[in-house]
Order: sequence, then C-alpha cells, then structure tokens
Amino acid sequence: MNGMCVATYRCFDEKADFHKRALSIAVGLTVGSWTELPEARKAEMEKHLGKVLSVEVHEEAGKERYADIRIAYPDINFSRDIPALLVTIFGKLSMDGRIKLIDIDVSDEFRSAFPGPKFGLQGVRDLLGVHDRPLLMSIFKSVIGYDLANLQEQFYKQALGGVDLIKDDEILFENPLTPLEKRVEACMEAARKASEETGQKLLYAVNLTGPTSQLADNARKAIAAGANALLFNVLAYGYDVLHELSKDPSISVPIAAHPAVGGAYYQSPYYGIGASVLFGKLMRLAGADLVLFPSPYGSVVMPKEENMAVKEVLLAETDGLKASFPVPSAGIHPGLVPLILRDFGQDVVVNAGGGVHGHPLGTAAGGKAFRQAIDAVLAGESLEEAARKPGAEPLQAAIDAWGIRHS
Amino acid sequence: MNGMCVATYRCFDEKADFHKRALSIAVGLTVGSWTELPEARKAEMEKHLGKVLSVEVHEEAGKERYADIRIAYPDINFSRDIPALLVTIFGKLSMDGRIKLIDIDVSDEFRSAFPGPKFGLQGVRDLLGVHDRPLLMSIFKSVIGYDLANLQEQFYKQALGGVDLIKDDEILFENPLTPLEKRVEACMEAARKASEETGQKLLYAVNLTGPTSQLADNARKAIAAGANALLFNVLAYGYDVLHELSKDPSISVPIAAHPAVGGAYYQSPYYGIGASVLFGKLMRLAGADLVLFPSPYGSVVMPKEENMAVKEVLLAETDGLKASFPVPSAGIHPGLVPLILRDFGQDVVVNAGGGVHGHPLGTAAGGKAFRQAIDAVLAGESLEEAARKPGAEPLQAAIDAWGIRHS
Repeated sequence: MNGMCVATYRCFDEKADFHKRALSIAVGLTVGSWTELPEARKAEMEKHLGKVLSVEVHEEAGKERYADIRIAYPDINFSRDIPALLVTIFGKLSMDGRIKLIDIDVSDEFRSAFPGPKFGLQGVRDLLGVHDRPLLMSIFKSVIGYDLANLQEQFYKQALGGVDLIKDDEILFENPLTPLEKRVEACMEAARKASEETGQKLLYAVNLTGPTSQLADNARKAIAAGANALLFNVLAYGYDVLHELSKDPSISVPIAAHPAVGGAYYQSPYYGIGASVLFGKLMRLAGADLVLFPSPYGSVVMPKEENMAVKEVLLAETDGLKASFPVPSAGIHPGLVPLILRDFGQDVVVNAGGGVHGHPLGTAAGGKAFRQAIDAVLAGESLEEAARKPGAEPLQAAIDAWGIRHS
Repeated sequence: MNGMCVATYRCFDEKADFHKRALSIAVGLTVGSWTELPEARKAEMEKHLGKVLSVEVHEEAGKERYADIRIAYPDINFSRDIPALLVTIFGKLSMDGRIKLIDIDVSDEFRSAFPGPKFGLQGVRDLLGVHDRPLLMSIFKSVIGYDLANLQEQFYKQALGGVDLIKDDEILFENPLTPLEKRVEACMEAARKASEETGQKLLYAVNLTGPTSQLADNARKAIAAGANALLFNVLAYGYDVLHELSKDPSISVPIAAHPAVGGAYYQSPYYGIGASVLFGKLMRLAGADLVLFPSPYGSVVMPKEENMAVKEVLLAETDGLKASFPVPSAGIHPGLVPLILRDFGQDVVVNAGGGVHGHPLGTAAGGKAFRQAIDAVLAGESLEEAARKPGAEPLQAAIDAWGIRHS
C-alpha cells in the first residue's frame, strides 16, 4: 500500500462491535479524535488519519468469537525505524485486552529505509560455495565452563562431519575461559584443519554479546580475529540494534538471528506478536541473513502452520530485500530430514545440536549422518535404502537411535 | 542470594513431573549435562551449575495444574547486562511450552553493575520541590498533525492547571511540524509562562526517538534545548538501551519509561514475562526514574494484584538502587484519586490525559480538579465535601462528568 503501513490484528471478544473497535483503533492511534474536528481541520488531518481496511468477524458455535482487523497507518506519522513502527501500531494497543498483532505489511517507502540482509540466502550460499542442497548447521553441545582447547576440539569434530555452519551456544557470553577473539581464533583454526580433510568451507557464527553501544566494536574485533559469521540474540537487544549492525558496512559477515526470548511474544493465541511477524517480517527487515526459530518437529515446538508462515515470509520475493535463510531448530535428528525438506524445500538450514553430538558413533558421524540423509532425500531415495549403502553406517546408526518420522 | 541470580517461573502442565522439569531447566540452561559427567569434571563444573531452589506444585480440583519453580543461575555464567540475564534465564526456555517468567532476584554482584535511576523518586521530588503530596502528570491530547503553536498552547493550558509533569504522547516521533529541539523550546517557554502564574516548577518529558545509536545525541540535543525530562519507549528499544542512557552522565535529566508494547509480554497467564518483572524489576534496574504502567482503574487495565506488585518492586528498599516513581496510567479521572492514593500512598504520580483535556471547564480546570482531589484526600475530606468549597468548581464539574469510584 502506498504511503501506509498495514497492521493486522486478531482480536477476541464475545460481544464487541468489532467495526467500532477497528475505527477507534484507526483514529485513536493516529489523530486521536476525529468526529468532533471542524471540517477545515479534517481536511488538514486527513493525511494523518488511520484507515480501517477490513474487519473479518469469525463467529462459530462452540468457538471463541474473534475478528481479524486490518488498519493502515500513514507513514507520515512515524519515523522509518522499527521501534517507531511498533510503538505506533502496537504500543498502547498491546495492553488493550485480548489482541494479537498477527501481520505487518510495510509500505515501499518505509521499507526503502532498510537495506535488509547484507548477504541473504544467496550470499550465504555464495560464501560457502554450496548451491545445490540444503545447508547443515551444528551447535556446540556444552560450552559453559569449558576452555579453548575443549571448544576447539568440539568444533573440529563437528566440522569433520561436513557441516556448513557451526554456531555458538546463545548462552555463551564474554568469559575468561573462552573470550571472544581467542574463541574465534581457536575455532577458525579448527575450521581450517577440518577443511583440509573435508574440502569444504565453513561459517562459524560466534555469539555477539556485550553492552549495546559496544556490539559493533565487538563484531569488528571478532571479524578481525577471523570470524566469518555472527550469532545475535536480537529480541534481547531490540530489532533496531540488529538493523544498525546489519547496515554497518564494516560488519562484513552474515548475521544469524537467534530466537531467544521469542516465546514470550508468539505463544499465546490471544496476546503478543505472531511468529511470522516476530521471526519473519521484522527479522528480515532488520537484516538477519539467517533466522533461527522453533521447528514444528522437535522438543521446543511451534505449530506447523506458523512455521510455514515464517518460511514464506523469509523467502518471499520482496522489493529491495534479499531473502533470509530459514533455520528451523530444536529436536532435529537425521530421521526428520525428509520431513524438513518436504516442508521447507532446499532453501533451508538443517540445524542440530543433540542430533549431531548425541550420535552413537560420535560427533563427526553425527554430521555425516545428516549429510547422508540430505543426499538421500535429494536423490529421491528413502532413508532406509540409503542407510544400507556402503559407507552409510552413520545414517544407519542415526536411524537405529532416533528412528525416522514420516509425518 | 550470593553470586547467583534467581528466576521464578510459573509452569502449567496437567501431568508433568515438575521436579524433574525444574532439574532439567537448571542443568539445561547452565552446564548442559550433568549426570553423565565424570566426577572430576563435576567438581570443576559445580560452580557453573544451576540450582533448583524450590518447586511448589499447585493442584486443585477444577483448576489448572501448575508449579512455581525457582532456579538459581550462577553469575559466573553470564555477563552483567540485562540481555545476557534474559537470554540465560528465559531465552530458549521462553519457547518451551506454557511457562511464564514471574520473578527475578538478581545477586548483589550482578546489581552492582547497575547504577539504577539517576534521580529516582526523591530526585524527581527534589527537582520539583514537592515532597508532601503525590505528583500530577498530564499527557498531550492530540499531537500528530499539530504544529508548534498548537502544542505550545496545549502545553500552557495543561501547565496552568498545576500539573507537575507533562509528557509527550509516545507516538510523537521526529517530524517536520514539531521537531525535537523546536518542540522543547516551545514547550519550555510555555512552562516558564505558566510558572509565572502558578508559581510551581514543571518537568516536560519529551519523547526520545530515533535510531538506537543516535538516542544519546538526541537526548543531549533535547537537554541543550531546555528539556528537563525524557520519555522513552523502553520495550521497543531494549532494556540495555535504557541502561546505557541512564548511566550516561551527560544525560542529566530524569527518564520516564513508557510501557508501549508491554502488553505483548505480561497479559497471558501462561506465557511471557510478569508485570512486576517487566515494569518493576527490570525497569528500575535499567534506570527508569519514573515508570508508567497500565492502572487497574481505567480502560487499559492490569489486575489490581499485579499493579500492587509493580508498585512494591519500584519502591522497595534495595541496596544501591534509588526507588522509581510508579505512574499507573490510562483511564484516570479526579474521581479515582481516593482509590489511587489508598492503593499507592503518596509516592505515586497521578497521570491523566482525557481526564485533564476532557474536563467540562477546559484543560486548565482539568488539572485543577485533580489537584483539588489530591488535596482533599490528603486533608481527609471526601471529594463530595471538598467539591462544595469555594473555588472548587473544577472538582465539582469533574465529579459531575465522571463520578467518584469508591472501590
């Protein structure tokens, strides 16, 4: 929509006149009052007035009554940054009863202030030189209380399994045992060593932490020490912080957005911010090259439908914004790969922690089992078939340990 | 607790073994794994291990089964900043089913990294020279689309009513009609003019907006232009941003934290972050001198019990942290003043928008009616009595318009 950002709300109420409610939102969050304004003033204020685009009331016997309300907010009312957008469309309103922000469509003008992901999906593929298959990411197992030598060894074993990306644990902060730059050096050395054996490239997303005003400096230090990607707890800092990091030309590596604290927003059907906005629209707008979010398969779950909505939003053709790589996470083992690829296609990062480290034949075999599962699916083979082939012991052992989920 | 920060979770589940769940949180969010560690390693890792402090299971027929679980996290595991704290105690966990973070108790060591409110409740009173009564704050009515002359006039009328603080609307961003520094100059001029009539001081909390990295500069510009307070949409930016602004010595005015977007966190009983953490513990730790939050009286409501918990947390004696001024907001009119003072005592800011501007005798009378209501309560008079006194027309008109709520 030209010159207006559109918010969609799901609003639950047994009795409310939803059309009246919509109008009161559109007026209340923009010009404040309308009907009592003199006509001359109305003409001047028209360009600031929110517009109700649609009100879809859902009433079904035995179900809760709700409405999906779409309101357009004139860009002229707020600055082109995510805090201003959020405060306008869901500031006071977030506290006004059972109402959830389920979608945002920003105007082209608003979006033009956001360069979006610096690398995006294709850029990450280019860095790795991998264009014909889903990527594989693994996560350190235990990190707190471990020293550099231990992290390096964990890293090396993960890398040997043929993973494309390794990410820090999001709860690893600046600490004396594995400080940022030393950690990057140790892990990148392990990456080079593994690369000699595997012949493949690898991105290490080191956790970017610290005071907000020092994040850019910390990122530059990590990059100077050799880091070729960053992990960032976006929701603990704010979308605008990600936006500023991402558009900074000196931060010349992809940023992976971690969903930590996200459950506080998206889980309730009645309150908060929907997953496709939280992990989709806003993460991509703010410039996340990869976005982690709870998968529909594992222990920390998100309903399938919401997961697919996040994916769509991250990948959809959008003027001026590169696609962000979807990284459905948590509870992933090789036996889930057919499902993941069926649901996400090839443009997905298969991301595993326990599914790599917990492999019966060890961490390196854990990565290999995933790569074998991915290859099998791409070749149109069943995992059972593929696991019987010579050299496929890692996949077979993974299937024996975790099984295969077919739906 | 020494060297550990304690989180309390409310966890709903019909069948779960909550003790097992608690242990898995304490281990999972710290050392990752425990029972399988060799004894020698356990001795080294002990200092990093989370501890289950208590598990209170609540089972009542006809009610949902839940447990309040308290876990202590060793400070050694995370850096002394709010993002690290939140990611540790409620990062991944926020996405793990029906679980809400309902309390945080940080260690003395962790808290020592936070200077807290620069002015605090007493500091704000000192600036205004008012120590013997609740303060009165008013909010601009309509601001979007209005020019400097109009804002100045609105400001003047509010100030004439004897309010102590005037705050910007939180949805007023940088704009060509009323840019930050011009707005401050125009409003502070109105403040001086009104002060000549009322003989009292006034704080103007101008809305601090813009890109995160420019906020401190914008604050300094506003202060240089004469601003003597700031309004800040903390949750749209992040607690750490408030913390950095608040501890910056050059930002030499009180900061009022607006609760915008807060409803996304606190409203669900099952998910998110409780109001006493969101508006209480973390706002005070991050340095808010005044904290706005939804009152239990008005249109945008919060249950009374949660409101009182926010108040307690903002005012409680806490080593090294000044108290923050509680500002229960939304739907406030003079007829609610007896209730507000009964619930909050004198250390409260009575905050009104419509209750000032919508007064039948005009904006200035709106402020006066509030001051008369406050004086009446402090003198032990009923509002009915006080309204019959000479000069109490503003209070009488307010009562006629909105009534008096007795409970």
